[in-house]
Amino acid sequence: MRTLTALLITLTFSAVTAAAPLPSWSDNPTKTAITDFVSAVTTEGSPDFVPASERVAVFDNDGTLWVEQPMYTQLAFVIDRVKTLAPEHPQWQEEQPFKALLEGDLDALKASGMEGLLKLVAATHAGMTSDDFARIASDWIASAQHPRFERPYTQVVYQPMLELLDYLRANGFKTFIVSGGGIDFMRPWTEQVYGIPPEQVVGSQIEMEYQVLEGVPSILRKAEIAFVDDKAGKPVGIQRHVGRRPILAFGNSDGDYQMLEWTTAGSGKRLGLILHHDDKSREYAYDRDSHIGRLDKGLDDAESNGWLLVSMKRDWSQVFPPSSEPQK
Amino acid sequence: MRTLTALLITLTFSAVTAAAPLPSWSDNPTKTAITDFVSAVTTEGSPDFVPASERVAVFDNDGTLWVEQPMYTQLAFVIDRVKTLAPEHPQWQEEQPFKALLEGDLDALKASGMEGLLKLVAATHAGMTSDDFARIASDWIASAQHPRFERPYTQVVYQPMLELLDYLRANGFKTFIVSGGGIDFMRPWTEQVYGIPPEQVVGSQIEMEYQVLEGVPSILRKAEIAFVDDKAGKPVGIQRHVGRRPILAFGNSDGDYQMLEWTTAGSGKRLGLILHHDDKSREYAYDRDSHIGRLDKGLDDAESNGWLLVSMKRDWSQVFPPSSEPQK
Ligand SMILES: [Ca+2]
Ligand SMILES: [Ca+2]
Repeated sequence: MRTLTALLITLTFSAVTAAAPLPSWSDNPTKTAITDFVSAVTTEGSPDFVPASERVAVFDNDGTLWVEQPMYTQLAFVIDRVKTLAPEHPQWQEEQPFKALLEGDLDALKASGMEGLLKLVAATHAGMTSDDFARIASDWIASAQHPRFERPYTQVVYQPMLELLDYLRANGFKTFIVSGGGIDFMRPWTEQVYGIPPEQVVGSQIEMEYQVLEGVPSILRKAEIAFVDDKAGKPVGIQRHVGRRPILAFGNSDGDYQMLEWTTAGSGKRLGLILHHDDKSREYAYDRDSHIGRLDKGLDDAESNGWLLVSMKRDWSQVFPPSSEPQK
Repeated sequence: MRTLTALLITLTFSAVTAAAPLPSWSDNPTKTAITDFVSAVTTEGSPDFVPASERVAVFDNDGTLWVEQPMYTQLAFVIDRVKTLAPEHPQWQEEQPFKALLEGDLDALKASGMEGLLKLVAATHAGMTSDDFARIASDWIASAQHPRFERPYTQVVYQPMLELLDYLRANGFKTFIVSGGGIDFMRPWTEQVYGIPPEQVVGSQIEMEYQVLEGVPSILRKAEIAFVDDKAGKPVGIQRHVGRRPILAFGNSDGDYQMLEWTTAGSGKRLGLILHHDDKSREYAYDRDSHIGRLDKGLDDAESNGWLLVSMKRDWSQVFPPSSEPQK
């Protein structure tokens, strides 16, 4: 009986959700385009109907689900880790890219290039077990704060996107993250924050090796890049992990171009969306000239490719979730 | 109202399932060990309770979910594909490993080693798009028959394992395949046959590349091995795809040793199972001396590692699902 009551509550709640989906989206053609798409693919008998098992929706993470300015969150993590570990590595005071990073010299950091990046990955993401890294990432995300909004990074996620994820799942979609960021950096918190479980997170990966270390079965993280889930890597990452072509893709930069292209080239009804950061007062405004989340070709081609440009300023009535902390 | 009725039917059906789970498993201590484990991890308040999101169960495929004798099904596919393609490749009549394969000379085939295998992969699994390969694999599996049982390969799956997968899912588990076989060979049919969707299939992979070919966005399959999901590769495959340590693992050969080890070394209650093929009359009997599905170290260590040896002969009252065709 308790179960039945719970089900009835769920039904009632679902009915309410269905009546007013996406409350933080402005009532305008962008929202209508999304709800029309979902209606079309979920209405049995509709020529655009898609069975639930084929309702795959993929979302970029940085700049699509959460803030990526003034720097990728994972870079903030790297900086904090290097600072934390620096006392054990006195040579870093003179060794690039550590010296640049510890001195906040971003130009020197950039100049260290791929070689520098691999050294940072080795120092902060490798040389420990997968369990240890998950704990390190979890501890950091629980304590670090976004410098401008002064709240945890898990609270500078976009409220309208949380609502969209919920709305799609309520309509039988499976939601996936397909991010250029590190897969194991995201997985410890995506289920709690986005409702997306670890196996539905696709991202860049380093090599790993299974070993029994002093009697303890362990997965060891190695300082070698195994897969870069960006640009043309995104459709490949989707094929590797999901094994089905999505019917909806949502990104924010040219790194998502191929994912949008692959998704919307499929037969039947498809929806490609690009979040345009044009809201300097509530978040940030950037596109063609930004080093982070550069959106150039996608901006040129969105209309001819049939992709919907979502304007943060115009289409979102609220940007962040309400916080228990005072918001600055 | 229709939805409510459907829910009530589901509830009733679930209750029936719960009353008599695993009907094709003999009523003996093996079955009790499985149901006791599931009760322990699903009973709230139990010291062994595991939240639903952590209930990950992984299954080997060949020899665990379906028959792997007298040869791996994927090898039968390779042989059929080479025969089908041979008229377009007259040079294969004199070129190894194709010559050996076309003549059924398994010794010469083995002698061609890894180089031979890569040539076969290149000829049958690569050089086409992912969509084309999925269609080729689907068409083959729909028409090919197992030589002894004279029914489609999708009907030489094990009925007790289908019941176990259903039973686990009814108890909130997510079920995954973790196979040494090719991931894209399995995905076209695992959802229909096992109820396991493509994104919950982990397997060996070849390299892929995203390209726009004559205006058509495509994922091209390349003749390079990207990942071998066997032995120490299995825990790594699990970490890559699932991102969580399983609480239940089921295999049948020494290729599953590390997967079982990784699973059962986790904290809290865990269950490791090994299917022992000891039923020559209904299926096959093989273990330490078999080239296919060799089980040697696992047989030695099962007891000391706390892994449950499942005897096909003793523990399964039925091996295959009922067929609409007469069974030989
Ligand atoms: Ca992005
Ligand atoms: Ca096997």
